Amino acid sequence: MTVELPDIRIRQARKDDLPALVAMFAADTVGGHGDTTDPAAFADYLKAFAAIEASPDQTLYVGERGGEIVGTFQTMVTTSLTGRGSSAMIIEAVQTRSDMRGQGIGARMIEFAIAEAKGRGVRLVQLTSNAIRKDAHRFYERLGFKPSHLGFKMALK
Amino acid sequence: MTVELPDIRIRQARKDDLPALVAMFAADTVGGHGDTTDPAAFADYLKAFAAIEASPDQTLYVGERGGEIVGTFQTMVTTSLTGRGSSAMIIEAVQTRSDMRGQGIGARMIEFAIAEAKGRGVRLVQLTSNAIRKDAHRFYERLGFKPSHLGFKMALK
Repeated sequence: MTVELPDIRIRQARKDDLPALVAMFAADTVGGHGDTTDPAAFADYLKAFAAIEASPDQTLYVGERGGEIVGTFQTMVTTSLTGRGSSAMIIEAVQTRSDMRGQGIGARMIEFAIAEAKGRGVRLVQLTSNAIRKDAHRFYERLGFKPSHLGFKMALK
Repeated sequence: MTVELPDIRIRQARKDDLPALVAMFAADTVGGHGDTTDPAAFADYLKAFAAIEASPDQTLYVGERGGEIVGTFQTMVTTSLTGRGSSAMIIEAVQTRSDMRGQGIGARMIEFAIAEAKGRGVRLVQLTSNAIRKDAHRFYERLGFKPSHLGFKMALK
């Protein structure tokens, strides 16, 4: 079987992408992250966008097709002493617009991130996925990821 | 039962802590990270230390007792659009010196990290732990973490 990859352009997010990105996160009910398109919340998103943009380690990307935002993900490059001082790329907040799923957009975004990691000499790419997202787990395993770890979280007051 | 916490001082790592830190990682065989006290590798650790020090998001800590390094961990604060533009702290490379385990040093280090996160207004603390480290999982659950996610990794060539 051959898979025709959709014509997606991946680029760094810009401030004017924010309304589309917020709408995408607000439509995702699994994570329970409380995202909302309520205009009162927009200042919080703007502030977060500025923080990501100011960080030398973090990059927010969008996938675009025909001028529309169809997906997003974020990367973070970290350095650790372990592994003889190795770098790792953490991929976070991967999201495909709900009406655009099953078209290879997510795979295209993850492959882009992996290529970025290789280009920077990073030897490990990692991410966590909510234990209830079984379809996402199959997706990541198909792409070559191993579910070798447990991801622990603690919400603070 | 009451647990007397050992008198541990936690502070940011300094360059002259590196030999003790490398020895601690080299003694850990579970992760298969290939760490070594071979002097030929020391330049790699120095380079990684400089990269961590230069990053505004990453901090390397040591736990010290009686002038000796008895543990280490690293934190990274990230910002994401999800959760109305929330911040998270990722804890990585948690290690207690092998002859110092079971004395509450790890708990003391994680509690320090959580306090740091709270001080910075971070609402979520997260980490991944190798699926085979069952004792570490019980440790993190006792501290209040939930194993809600799977951690996927991919080693790059």
